[in-house]
Amino acid sequence: MKTITPTPALEQLEKLAAAHKPGYTLDNTFYQSPEVFARDVERIFMRTWLYVGHVSQIPASGDYFLFDIAAESVIIVRDEDGAVHSLANVCRHRGSRVCREASGNTNTFVCGYHGWVYSLNGELRSRRFMADDFEPFRFGLKRLKTHVFHGLIFINLSAEPSDFEAETAPLSTLLEPLQLERTKVAARTNYPVAANWKLALENYLECYHCSPAHPEYARIHALRLPEPQLRVLREEFRAKPNPNGLSNEHLETGYEADSDVTRIYYLRSPLSGDALSGSEDGKPLAPLLGRLVEHDGGSIDVSIGLVTYLLVYTDHAVVYRFTPRDVQTSDMEVTWLVRDDAEEGVDYELERLTWMWDVTSKADKRIINDNQAGVNSRFYEPGPFSEMESSPRDFAQWYLRTLCTP
Amino acid sequence: MKTITPTPALEQLEKLAAAHKPGYTLDNTFYQSPEVFARDVERIFMRTWLYVGHVSQIPASGDYFLFDIAAESVIIVRDEDGAVHSLANVCRHRGSRVCREASGNTNTFVCGYHGWVYSLNGELRSRRFMADDFEPFRFGLKRLKTHVFHGLIFINLSAEPSDFEAETAPLSTLLEPLQLERTKVAARTNYPVAANWKLALENYLECYHCSPAHPEYARIHALRLPEPQLRVLREEFRAKPNPNGLSNEHLETGYEADSDVTRIYYLRSPLSGDALSGSEDGKPLAPLLGRLVEHDGGSIDVSIGLVTYLLVYTDHAVVYRFTPRDVQTSDMEVTWLVRDDAEEGVDYELERLTWMWDVTSKADKRIINDNQAGVNSRFYEPGPFSEMESSPRDFAQWYLRTLCTP
Amino acid sequence: MKTITPTPALEQLEKLAAAHKPGYTLDNTFYQSPEVFARDVERIFMRTWLYVGHVSQIPASGDYFLFDIAAESVIIVRDEDGAVHSLANVCRHRGSRVCREASGNTNTFVCGYHGWVYSLNGELRSRRFMADDFEPFRFGLKRLKTHVFHGLIFINLSAEPSDFEAETAPLSTLLEPLQLERTKVAARTNYPVAANWKLALENYLECYHCSPAHPEYARIHALRLPEPQLRVLREEFRAKPNPNGLSNEHLETGYEADSDVTRIYYLRSPLSGDALSGSEDGKPLAPLLGRLVEHDGGSIDVSIGLVTYLLVYTDHAVVYRFTPRDVQTSDMEVTWLVRDDAEEGVDYELERLTWMWDVTSKADKRIINDNQAGVNSRFYEPGPFSEMESSPRDFAQWYLRTLCTP
Repeated sequence: MKTITPTPALEQLEKLAAAHKPGYTLDNTFYQSPEVFARDVERIFMRTWLYVGHVSQIPASGDYFLFDIAAESVIIVRDEDGAVHSLANVCRHRGSRVCREASGNTNTFVCGYHGWVYSLNGELRSRRFMADDFEPFRFGLKRLKTHVFHGLIFINLSAEPSDFEAETAPLSTLLEPLQLERTKVAARTNYPVAANWKLALENYLECYHCSPAHPEYARIHALRLPEPQLRVLREEFRAKPNPNGLSNEHLETGYEADSDVTRIYYLRSPLSGDALSGSEDGKPLAPLLGRLVEHDGGSIDVSIGLVTYLLVYTDHAVVYRFTPRDVQTSDMEVTWLVRDDAEEGVDYELERLTWMWDVTSKADKRIINDNQAGVNSRFYEPGPFSEMESSPRDFAQWYLRTLCTP
Repeated sequence: MKTITPTPALEQLEKLAAAHKPGYTLDNTFYQSPEVFARDVERIFMRTWLYVGHVSQIPASGDYFLFDIAAESVIIVRDEDGAVHSLANVCRHRGSRVCREASGNTNTFVCGYHGWVYSLNGELRSRRFMADDFEPFRFGLKRLKTHVFHGLIFINLSAEPSDFEAETAPLSTLLEPLQLERTKVAARTNYPVAANWKLALENYLECYHCSPAHPEYARIHALRLPEPQLRVLREEFRAKPNPNGLSNEHLETGYEADSDVTRIYYLRSPLSGDALSGSEDGKPLAPLLGRLVEHDGGSIDVSIGLVTYLLVYTDHAVVYRFTPRDVQTSDMEVTWLVRDDAEEGVDYELERLTWMWDVTSKADKRIINDNQAGVNSRFYEPGPFSEMESSPRDFAQWYLRTLCTP
Repeated sequence: MKTITPTPALEQLEKLAAAHKPGYTLDNTFYQSPEVFARDVERIFMRTWLYVGHVSQIPASGDYFLFDIAAESVIIVRDEDGAVHSLANVCRHRGSRVCREASGNTNTFVCGYHGWVYSLNGELRSRRFMADDFEPFRFGLKRLKTHVFHGLIFINLSAEPSDFEAETAPLSTLLEPLQLERTKVAARTNYPVAANWKLALENYLECYHCSPAHPEYARIHALRLPEPQLRVLREEFRAKPNPNGLSNEHLETGYEADSDVTRIYYLRSPLSGDALSGSEDGKPLAPLLGRLVEHDGGSIDVSIGLVTYLLVYTDHAVVYRFTPRDVQTSDMEVTWLVRDDAEEGVDYELERLTWMWDVTSKADKRIINDNQAGVNSRFYEPGPFSEMESSPRDFAQWYLRTLCTP
């Protein structure tokens, strides 16, 4: 929907933001207003780097898949030279989608309406009966900025995005031993929620809820613990020599940064007791990733930008992606990555592999839906964050700043 | 949805109200505009006393049920001391629903998100890892005004509601012989309509449509008759001595009153011929209510506030409740009450008991839906009320006054 | 829905219209904005003549059917004198629909709410218990302008529509040999699309897409050809003497005309090769229409007003009708007409008869849906029309002029 009434004046948003009490949750207008949602899309999702998929999904020339966000459909395609492109799925003639299938392989994209033909890098190859002064080079599919990071494909819908490569360089070094570019997608599931994307994200950003809401996760992970206990445990863990060459550095560019800058985060934590992976029984699930040599009893939390999160165990990685659909509808997509040479049924069992984050995501879906239902009430008022919720607390501040920047 | 654009200026509403021709139906803007609906919710439903259920639904300590209106969810619960409370179903931490089940029994309300625990009267009992200066007494569930009237539980979402007890005192005396507090819910059914709540209410307020639309009701009730005939019949009826001690007073605080005052209405009418109850064949359906001693051939129409109506026969009572859901979606809930010691299958048959108001409500649902469909037309224009439609006629005037009060 | 916020200022629309580049498609605001849609309904659909059905659908007195557009329901009915009326389906009492069935036969329309009775021409016949000064003649069902053109029933929702009869007179003469008033509806199917009505219409207006998208149609019709080739073929075709007395005139009142004037169009074209009708194999499908004497290898494209199109073969006619439902929902209804004395199973097979336009309409539905999906993108920008798209090109100009006229 595209209304032609003006979006609400910046002053109104500034007033709401000014009334915000630090350390408290946001006013519920931010989770309910279609105008705020439209602004979220513009200010955040059309500027931030978005994870769209893994290179293993398009290994060969002509392989492609679609990524949707808001009203946008983007074709992610590998061309004849092996380069990965992101093309707006909009014919330059009369605007039809040029690609209908969610994924596939093709030599060209032929618009099903009037037969215009585009090459894999988006150039207009042929068209019929256009005027003599028609300049085909001006009518290629619009190309978006694309970056492949350790096998993870990121795109940016802005014409002038931030410098992803420079911003993620420190993180890149730390992830090197894992060789995520040499993994493949073992499973991928979407968990849609009836909630504003910020409620879904805020849920992911803290582990205050892990003990009461996620007994399965809490049994295996130390993150459920209150900060003082967790800190002691972490220090003990880091003091031990790491056989895998994984860094114990705590890398974090927090919410202080400019809103367009790609936030990064890297932190290793111990698993509980003698757990070795994110499985129901703590036992390993798949062959060791990359150059790792043993199950070291730890896991790594990673964030790459605002809405892409990795949870890396020694034998698999989970990619968590948040995508807004509507003011109170969002997608949480979970992708499970294993070594690219691992064989299903031999090296890993799909059900065991996905168990932990399937059960946890289903619980989160319920929690987030209940959260939105309550937040919609006139009796809701911003409540105080606990000590274990510093991340959503900081996110709230960052968000208000970002939304109100002209 | 919560838009941050200003609601339409009062002047626009005043202009529409000023153009209203007394004795005619309302302009269709009032049945179609989301802005008017939002104002209806604020000006009327957030101020008026609302029937939410009967005490027999929560006999024991910890028994509870939920009541929903607009975006609100309210917990109606009996505490350890037997008191009935209404609590906003919104956790004071991050706003989640704290109660998920539509009804049940519990010792405490534990928020499923971060484990905050509330007692049955809403006080915050425990919470985890909050800052030292956290003051738990400030974070109880919000409590709404609640009043139990002859076993019927009413709540008010306003912080300063009108004085329900004083306003309903005259009605209370008249209802006394019926002992409605000693009844129980035999059945409860919702009849959702695709119409604005005012069209549903206006349907209930007149019996001009009874003859053409409700042959089942019209056969048993005298209300279908035109006013002059009905008046004669009523006078004859009232002249007879009443064995049950029921008053023949016509109690009515009409639509002249202040909009926030609880309107009350009480009027006994004769049933048709030798009918003794609101049944298919006119025969009794259940044991006599309260202190009544015989089927006296009459029924009582009662209204308690704007959207709660009772139709009391000597052996059962029907509670009619209107709840707005959206600008063109409303609920009509019908509750059948019988003596609390009556046994289903022995003292009454459920199907016979509910027959009359089930068939009548289904017909009304169809009628009201057709009414909204027609009212949405640009060819609709306000039409003249008949002599038998004085109640919806007066309601229209009251409504315009109420909506336009600043 | 009827909002009471003002519709967006004319200036905003004028600015968008002024920015339009002739020869290019429209800005996507025109396909997405609810405000523009509301204006489309007012400026175009409430003023233009609309095809609602064929006289063969209501042969006898009291026969009726309903036609819906936007929030309107209109009763098309034949009265006792054989006249066809169009009546707003809105009771003049409290606005209920007075007719519930999509089609049928009746002596009167009795409102199901309070029993008001209307005659077949809309006059109020009886009502109950109205005040003494009630003037029944003021409360008939509202009657809309109606015109029967060669058996096709057109209505106009405006109080002062353009002069349909005068405007279509030249077309009327040309259609005379076909005797469409002596046909009957053999089949009728709706193809709803998830697209703005303009995208559906623009699809119908050009045959640039016929070759790539409609192989079935393209095999039988010459219209798929680029204009120079088509022109040669048409001239050859017209040079041949026509045995059926059909005119080879090219009648066209284009998009230059005043927006309220009924546009008309008539053009005969050759079918491909030795095809004789719009069938899968090019063979005839039904008895010759009207006074025609042989299958002459041609077909006639006709337009009557903005949203009604005929494709006439020598043995059947197809009526194409576009109806807006919502900003991105529209109906495309296809009606197949054959001689009124043709017998199904004897003179024609339903499946053969409908094959061509069923397969073509299903393809168009897919194409139009894909077009809307792409047009909704922020990466859409108006694209250049080809030489074969002069009609949608001219429509775009006409539309902007019409929308922006105060």
